[in-house]
Amino acid sequence: MQFRMEEAIEVLERTPATLGHFLSGLSEGWLLCNEGEGTWNVTEVIEHLIEAERTNWIPRLEFLLQEGESKPFPPFDRYSHLNAGPERSFGQKLLDFQTIRSHNIALLKQQVDPDRDLERTGLHPAFGIVKLRELLSTWVIHDLTHTAQIVRVMAERYRTDVGPWTAYLGILKPR
Amino acid sequence: MQFRMEEAIEVLERTPATLGHFLSGLSEGWLLCNEGEGTWNVTEVIEHLIEAERTNWIPRLEFLLQEGESKPFPPFDRYSHLNAGPERSFGQKLLDFQTIRSHNIALLKQQVDPDRDLERTGLHPAFGIVKLRELLSTWVIHDLTHTAQIVRVMAERYRTDVGPWTAYLGILKPR
Repeated sequence: MQFRMEEAIEVLERTPATLGHFLSGLSEGWLLCNEGEGTWNVTEVIEHLIEAERTNWIPRLEFLLQEGESKPFPPFDRYSHLNAGPERSFGQKLLDFQTIRSHNIALLKQQVDPDRDLERTGLHPAFGIVKLRELLSTWVIHDLTHTAQIVRVMAERYRTDVGPWTAYLGILKPR
Repeated sequence: MQFRMEEAIEVLERTPATLGHFLSGLSEGWLLCNEGEGTWNVTEVIEHLIEAERTNWIPRLEFLLQEGESKPFPPFDRYSHLNAGPERSFGQKLLDFQTIRSHNIALLKQQVDPDRDLERTGLHPAFGIVKLRELLSTWVIHDLTHTAQIVRVMAERYRTDVGPWTAYLGILKPR
């Protein structure tokens, strides 16, 4: 086990500002490109990250602490952000992610004592019994997987532009 | 062709500060972990990015503009950063990357007129004839591929910690 709560928080607290720094002010070409039919563009990934802050990590954490293994986590819709209105600008969404993440890290620190709670268990509707530290590790890796997705989606845009160099660029390898 | 020089520069100018923001102050556990024997840790990726600024992009650009297809690009060693001394701190290396990148973007803008030069050609030692716009596209995608590598290397650290959620985390899929 590598997980340590203070190191996990190091990543969680950096992701929103990092993405804000990388994506603020980019041309629409970068923000609206995707990997083809049914795939997300960069804007949709940010909306998904915000939605997960709202409905996934802290709600599940609180449910686990309250219910233990007695009831499975309530389901949530991983695609619900796709139905949200476009009423906020992309720059506002980047800030929304920062705000809700800061708030959630504060809740995490308030509710979890790493010396006592990491092995506590809950019931995942598909996986069965899961540990609190697995949920928190997943929160971190979820940040990393969607950061990787963002740069991969952007890289796709220049797939043919790089010409023969495609051979040297791992990000363009077929998945 | 998607390549547009001003959009390429948007990414090139954001990468160093983005990585600086994400990586500054991280614990050694994140900076020194790797994906196994013979793979790079985050620190080595940053050293590689600096080395490519020194020996790859602008030197090849200048060579192409000067020599055209008459002589192949001189070879360079993609692993040379692994022989560099550890004399500078990681924080200093992040700043070194920002400094040399800013300098190189200035040289790019000075030396390349996108209306005139993008289709100019040079001779790659392995690929044969390549275009200037392919070299510049590759510079951008090289940033993205190593950003993806950094988050992938970090994600590897929690591969077992996420427990059953590994099934939902694309970044942990075997490559």
